[in-house]
Amino acid sequence: MNILIHSGTILPLNDRPLIRDGAVAIEDNTIIAVEKTDDLKRKCGRSFEKIDAKDCIVMPGLVNTHQHASMSLLRGYADDLPLQEWLEKRIWPIEAKMAPHDIYAGALLTAAESIMSGTTTVNTMYHYFPEENEAKAFADAGLRGVIGHVCFSWRKKEDKEALKKLAREWHRQKNGLIRVSVDPHSPYTVDPEYMKDLEATRKELNQKYGSTADPIITHIHVAETRGEKSKVQKTFQLRLKNGLMEYLDSLGVLHENVIAAHCVALEDRDFTVMKRRKVKISHNPISNLKLASGISPITTMIEKGITVSLGTDSPCSNNSADMFEVMKTTALLHKGVNNNPTLVPASRVLELATIEGAKALSWEKDIGSIEIGKKADLAIIDLKKPHFCPIHNEISHLVYAAKGSDVKTVIIDGKIVMENRELVTVKIDSVMEMAEKAKNTLLEKIDANIK
Amino acid sequence: MNILIHSGTILPLNDRPLIRDGAVAIEDNTIIAVEKTDDLKRKCGRSFEKIDAKDCIVMPGLVNTHQHASMSLLRGYADDLPLQEWLEKRIWPIEAKMAPHDIYAGALLTAAESIMSGTTTVNTMYHYFPEENEAKAFADAGLRGVIGHVCFSWRKKEDKEALKKLAREWHRQKNGLIRVSVDPHSPYTVDPEYMKDLEATRKELNQKYGSTADPIITHIHVAETRGEKSKVQKTFQLRLKNGLMEYLDSLGVLHENVIAAHCVALEDRDFTVMKRRKVKISHNPISNLKLASGISPITTMIEKGITVSLGTDSPCSNNSADMFEVMKTTALLHKGVNNNPTLVPASRVLELATIEGAKALSWEKDIGSIEIGKKADLAIIDLKKPHFCPIHNEISHLVYAAKGSDVKTVIIDGKIVMENRELVTVKIDSVMEMAEKAKNTLLEKIDANIK
Repeated sequence: MNILIHSGTILPLNDRPLIRDGAVAIEDNTIIAVEKTDDLKRKCGRSFEKIDAKDCIVMPGLVNTHQHASMSLLRGYADDLPLQEWLEKRIWPIEAKMAPHDIYAGALLTAAESIMSGTTTVNTMYHYFPEENEAKAFADAGLRGVIGHVCFSWRKKEDKEALKKLAREWHRQKNGLIRVSVDPHSPYTVDPEYMKDLEATRKELNQKYGSTADPIITHIHVAETRGEKSKVQKTFQLRLKNGLMEYLDSLGVLHENVIAAHCVALEDRDFTVMKRRKVKISHNPISNLKLASGISPITTMIEKGITVSLGTDSPCSNNSADMFEVMKTTALLHKGVNNNPTLVPASRVLELATIEGAKALSWEKDIGSIEIGKKADLAIIDLKKPHFCPIHNEISHLVYAAKGSDVKTVIIDGKIVMENRELVTVKIDSVMEMAEKAKNTLLEKIDANIK
Repeated sequence: MNILIHSGTILPLNDRPLIRDGAVAIEDNTIIAVEKTDDLKRKCGRSFEKIDAKDCIVMPGLVNTHQHASMSLLRGYADDLPLQEWLEKRIWPIEAKMAPHDIYAGALLTAAESIMSGTTTVNTMYHYFPEENEAKAFADAGLRGVIGHVCFSWRKKEDKEALKKLAREWHRQKNGLIRVSVDPHSPYTVDPEYMKDLEATRKELNQKYGSTADPIITHIHVAETRGEKSKVQKTFQLRLKNGLMEYLDSLGVLHENVIAAHCVALEDRDFTVMKRRKVKISHNPISNLKLASGISPITTMIEKGITVSLGTDSPCSNNSADMFEVMKTTALLHKGVNNNPTLVPASRVLELATIEGAKALSWEKDIGSIEIGKKADLAIIDLKKPHFCPIHNEISHLVYAAKGSDVKTVIIDGKIVMENRELVTVKIDSVMEMAEKAKNTLLEKIDANIK
């Protein structure tokens, strides 16, 4: 289907200027023109479905570079607790009960919530089951995604099987909507040998199923808390002279297709390593504050030319999939803690949530901005609301005043997946019902365990 | 009109337990019963308009204890700038051009936005003009408010006139919906003698128009930035031994009807003074981060038993009137900067935004919780949304997942002011048009000045 979005304010990003009374033409899944409405309307005939974007901003869909989509089933299950109690006594026991269908139900819920708040690509790390999984959920919702399988030292054999199946069944599937990743959980849960081994597996799978243009990437948590380095040292009987990035580099597992989530507790030499190896980061300020993990030094990283993108983290450490919240929190937090109100301005934050997100997933050739030849992943934001009034500066409004609920229509890979706030791909009431039911079953299993 | 809200989850707050399948009955402007739906439905006959709150939370309306409502006209006008440049080169020059109608238009916009995000009471500090003003705007929108006139040393005579008119014309007006306050701008813009003088004026006006039950209060900015103390010392040739609260106390202007906004840069002895004088504070975390003013030590204040409430601050230092954002930011920020994920839990944050807000405005006998005999100021939140799914814990959802746009229906002083997201009291399109026009005229005035 061909689509013409017209009469809106087009915010292409990636150093392209804003176009007032602009239009975007889409053929199949690709952007074919970005111009003034008058010019483009003449060129696009009847075969184009028209979307009137009057009083709206048309922007690239948001890219959420760190999620655990299925964990939406645990949203609000355990908040305001000490980190270890939260993880070990509440989250891990209930996660252990999750069956393949739960993984699907939770991921479908997050996919719906993501689309409804303007996110068009999500990078998710969770457990892959061939029967039902996050990849199927994203594909059903029409959400673009990088689907990972998370690996731990204690289940090497299962992990290897899962990784192979995931890559074979899902990489570059659904017209290229779905890609996959290899996800060592973290330096403290994956031993050094297994870390190297997983990189070898990634290379092998990438040679078989990927390409330079659409690689199988690595997705890993690094330096989420201050205690992580000492955990690594204790667990693996190591003596680290410097930071965790330098440690990972010594294993030969860092490269330009690595996205490291959090990066809160870095040491000086880590920045040099990241820059040299072109490692990308996913900044998750809401989760980091909520779990009291610390504040990632993203202003330093941006200064050094490291690619910084934004993520929500899981729905039980945030508890929302709304990237507008992450954008505002990012803009606020680094001004506040660095005593400088000019840091991370609105225009920069918008880039972190779009084009930098695309770069962080090695997907910038296809997504992250509104440009001819890129895939049509777009969010249309309705500005006709009191909290956007008056209009001085749309860019400021998008970061400091917008909410996910202001997103009116979303297009992913050239398909309308939400129109006037109605999801097109899935029935939202059924999705919520399925998730509520899955949650109840999970709680019954936990209760049975306790009794 | 009598109203029965039924079949919802009632969250009364103020130490009262949550009621599932509960109901609230309202007679005129007063809550007359809070019970299980079955019990209450039998008692309330046909004279009661029924509101079905199935799948909803019914909670006390939010209390925003620090606003400059009319400044919505400048939302997004000047962001990401150094503080002094922002204030002196951008905000003050355009504010100086604001005519009485601008004050009204901006405040009406903020009133609409506040109601639409579940806020039922707003404490606002701005310039009072008898012709058109914030009080009239709030009354027209049906929003409860404390309307102040902000006072500066450089316009004592005008201030005195304005304060008298404000108190005479508006205190306890509109069925008690509107109260007024005397607002010394801050310790650095109001000289010591004038500070005392304003307190004398407040007492006088309170004797004439107020009462112990509904006093004319003081609303003031205190210790917003680290540099404020030295500004006070320089401007007024003073030598302060301790903090700004102790300084204000030495002037005899602190008492239980003072609400101090920000309180970022306090010194140890300030806490003792605040506790002794029962001074209340309005915490504005979003504004403080955005302007890089610092982080208010609210966990210390809460521990010491000082009343801490929440505010958005003005729409040009936030830039939203959404108290749900302020709640989430409060819960996150203090966990994050204190390295403790158990601090300011969701249940506590909800209190800060409701009953503590009411206390901070000396209005807790009437508002801030759902209790028999209190005024009916309620927000009904629609939980049937993907970001509230599944339901583990409604209190967590309200703080960590909710947005202002989830508010479905709002009742203030027993009147439905928004129903199913449609404002009843004002036409939102006209309000936005008026604000946009006022902004354009203001910009023309500024442009004319520059030429």
